[in-house]
Amino acid sequence: MDSYLIQMNGNSDIPSVLDVHVNINGTNPSLGKVRSRKPRWAVRASEMSKKTFNPIRAIVDTMKVEPNPNKPMISLSIGDPTVFGNLPTDDEVTRAVKEALDSGNYNGYAPSVGYQSCRQVVAAYYSCPEAPLEAQDVILTSGCSQAIELALAVLANPGQNILVPRPGFSLYKTLALSMGIEVKFYNLLPEKSWEIDLKHLESLVDEKTACLIVNNPSNPCGSVFSKSHLQKILAVASRQCVPILADEIYGDMVFAECKYEPIATLSTNVPILSCGGLAKRWLVPGWRMGWILVNDRRDIFGNEIRDGLVRLSQRILGPCTIVQGALEHIIHQTPPEFYHNTLGFLKSNADLCYTALSAVSGLQPVRPSGAMYLMVGIEMEHFPEFENDVEFTEQLISEQSVFCLPATCFEYPNFFRVVITVPEEMMLEACSRIQEFCERHYQGSEGAQDLECDK
Amino acid sequence: MDSYLIQMNGNSDIPSVLDVHVNINGTNPSLGKVRSRKPRWAVRASEMSKKTFNPIRAIVDTMKVEPNPNKPMISLSIGDPTVFGNLPTDDEVTRAVKEALDSGNYNGYAPSVGYQSCRQVVAAYYSCPEAPLEAQDVILTSGCSQAIELALAVLANPGQNILVPRPGFSLYKTLALSMGIEVKFYNLLPEKSWEIDLKHLESLVDEKTACLIVNNPSNPCGSVFSKSHLQKILAVASRQCVPILADEIYGDMVFAECKYEPIATLSTNVPILSCGGLAKRWLVPGWRMGWILVNDRRDIFGNEIRDGLVRLSQRILGPCTIVQGALEHIIHQTPPEFYHNTLGFLKSNADLCYTALSAVSGLQPVRPSGAMYLMVGIEMEHFPEFENDVEFTEQLISEQSVFCLPATCFEYPNFFRVVITVPEEMMLEACSRIQEFCERHYQGSEGAQDLECDK
Ligand SMILES: Cc1ncc(COP(=O)(O)O)c(C=O)c1O
Ligand SMILES: Cc1ncc(COP(=O)(O)O)c(C=O)c1O
Repeated sequence: MDSYLIQMNGNSDIPSVLDVHVNINGTNPSLGKVRSRKPRWAVRASEMSKKTFNPIRAIVDTMKVEPNPNKPMISLSIGDPTVFGNLPTDDEVTRAVKEALDSGNYNGYAPSVGYQSCRQVVAAYYSCPEAPLEAQDVILTSGCSQAIELALAVLANPGQNILVPRPGFSLYKTLALSMGIEVKFYNLLPEKSWEIDLKHLESLVDEKTACLIVNNPSNPCGSVFSKSHLQKILAVASRQCVPILADEIYGDMVFAECKYEPIATLSTNVPILSCGGLAKRWLVPGWRMGWILVNDRRDIFGNEIRDGLVRLSQRILGPCTIVQGALEHIIHQTPPEFYHNTLGFLKSNADLCYTALSAVSGLQPVRPSGAMYLMVGIEMEHFPEFENDVEFTEQLISEQSVFCLPATCFEYPNFFRVVITVPEEMMLEACSRIQEFCERHYQGSEGAQDLECDK
Repeated sequence: MDSYLIQMNGNSDIPSVLDVHVNINGTNPSLGKVRSRKPRWAVRASEMSKKTFNPIRAIVDTMKVEPNPNKPMISLSIGDPTVFGNLPTDDEVTRAVKEALDSGNYNGYAPSVGYQSCRQVVAAYYSCPEAPLEAQDVILTSGCSQAIELALAVLANPGQNILVPRPGFSLYKTLALSMGIEVKFYNLLPEKSWEIDLKHLESLVDEKTACLIVNNPSNPCGSVFSKSHLQKILAVASRQCVPILADEIYGDMVFAECKYEPIATLSTNVPILSCGGLAKRWLVPGWRMGWILVNDRRDIFGNEIRDGLVRLSQRILGPCTIVQGALEHIIHQTPPEFYHNTLGFLKSNADLCYTALSAVSGLQPVRPSGAMYLMVGIEMEHFPEFENDVEFTEQLISEQSVFCLPATCFEYPNFFRVVITVPEEMMLEACSRIQEFCERHYQGSEGAQDLECDK
């Protein structure tokens, strides 16, 4: 009786492909004809699903994160500006979506790369004489994440490699490994405000390098590259003939003293796929609206890459049409004060946090110039109780109920990342708790030596 | 001068990896040290992007589709119920999204598998004693397309195969081939209201079969499987130990005389990933809200498949949060009359179309029982002017300005598919034009023979 056999197999705790086949055939199993090919249930998850690995989840899920019950939790860990309610999107943005809804015109399928009119709007918004864009140069995607996924999927084959910043946003590696693409990390230099170590970068290029990912402004660093540094990066790409995937989701999110330059505006020859979206600047990351801008002044990508992107977009179709329907209004009607206020707030919080943590012995914060993050170096030799940044941040939770991501999540041990979108009083409270924590655990150089001698 | 060289290469018409390296080094190129490793631009689209192939686009884009200028175009080609404006979604659905927007609670990131509360709502809505579901059994996705993508990606490895209906929705093949998964087509039988040829189905299973896709109700057939037929399909899956990917995006969209049974409710052992979404029943395909229901009563998928789905969902994150925020309201508050009216309309159009085309010599419509489609067989021997269904539908456009998809798009030549969501008068007009067209081109058996003799 097949179904009985199946049921048995299905109930076994760990179905293994190596199991010997047991055949229980009706009333007298021992007499049953042994059908050695009898299929059995052995459904395994695919290799790709196993290779899809989110390091942040992997690290955070294994952390012992029992906060101190006497202190309310302050989470400075998630790159989501909306969680504290202090940074709502602008009313115009919400109104735009309502209008799109009311029109009844945005319920059907859009083309998989987005409505032509929306592509036109994005193209016009980002186009400039140095990097002209037309509607056909814009692919709308389900968030910047899908933009990065499509850009990688069109540029790289399994077995090729991509150059990725360290520290850097973990999705690049997650996506690449799941597609069988190798990741080579190039170093960012904290002592140079996280500029790229260009020599190191160039040394990594080989004939299998499919693209260079440049993330500016940076998550997790909050750094913003100067024009001249961007030009040097472009010179490497140009010399080595490596196309660039520019992750500019924090584009225009830079503090007043600083200027943001879209990398594509500085090159006349390097082909660049610039990825962006509404998530951060318009403070609506959940809406999943992103885009790829195809910058290709020398026709190096040509139709092939463009066609490839179009084909890939047909797999799951583009972003939600009601957000698409709102896009023109959002881009044109959001008042300048909205952006201005957001950045003023972020700058002020960045200053508070930087100043407070600079005064703490054993910590080395790096001053950010944009985005929503600040990286803090831990002088581990002064905290000999902790093996690494993961243990440090773990203990910070249990003692002080402050949660910062250990920068091991970004392939950069001995740092932690602070998210600076929290309300000011929380920012201050968090900093003073971090200070208390460090004061308690800091060991001067002698103490550290003592401990070393103990070993 | 590197940049000059690069510019030259960049400008070359067809950069080829086989080109001999030319080195123009500053003022005297001939004296320049020849660096045989000089990189040059040669950016090619990935294999995966080339393997991502939408047969509908490929066929439609090569069709000569110049409509007759004297007749307004009637397009019966797109499976989008919203295009004619006669099937708006319900006001409650729109209101739900506005409320989600106004709450301000749905702008941030949701978990990549969707908000827990939304998963709960979907689980409760689809759960029944025969196929119980909990929140953790539901993965929210960006449309049913992404649900299918994730389900395939977790179940199949490159080199394995999947069983796909013929005729069937083209996305299955598009996705599978792009992932290196082989597609084996099993036949549906028009003479048996498109039931599956079960013998043929079972004969295709081999040790590399990763899953069986069952699409019920069917696109392009509009067929709805009976309970007993579904049980027979399940018996095959159970005997062969092949999990099922059930594409039930048209679930509950069946005409009054017929009953829709979710396949998972009929099995106690076969592990099933059921894919669905808001697109069709709620008439908002552009909103990109879909889901996977994990039905696994015997724990055959176990944690492995579930974890795999969670990991895969982290690649681009889930559907738009404002639609997620509206989901509970949409599912609970959409009035029953809405569904009822939609189905009444579809049924009436299906009847009109079936009746009209049944009377046309040379056509063999198959009566649908649900979804939004009707398949029409073309007795090609009576239309000897046309090589195949593509030529037939092409000519139908140029003479009658009526556009139906040739069923070659669904791997089923000599049929065409009619979309029955158009307003009634358009449906009638389209049918009468199809009739006129057929009358003009029909050749009785003698005529057909004559033509054969001519060869
Ligand atoms: C550097 C970087 N790129 C891309 C993304 C993803 O953006 P989205 O939410 O639009 O997918 C993020 C999100 O945190 C990010 O920090
Ligand atoms: C059978 C079938 N499955 C899945 C889909 C995709 O649905 P969605 O628009 O939610 O991605 C369609 C769309 O036409 C379909 O016909």
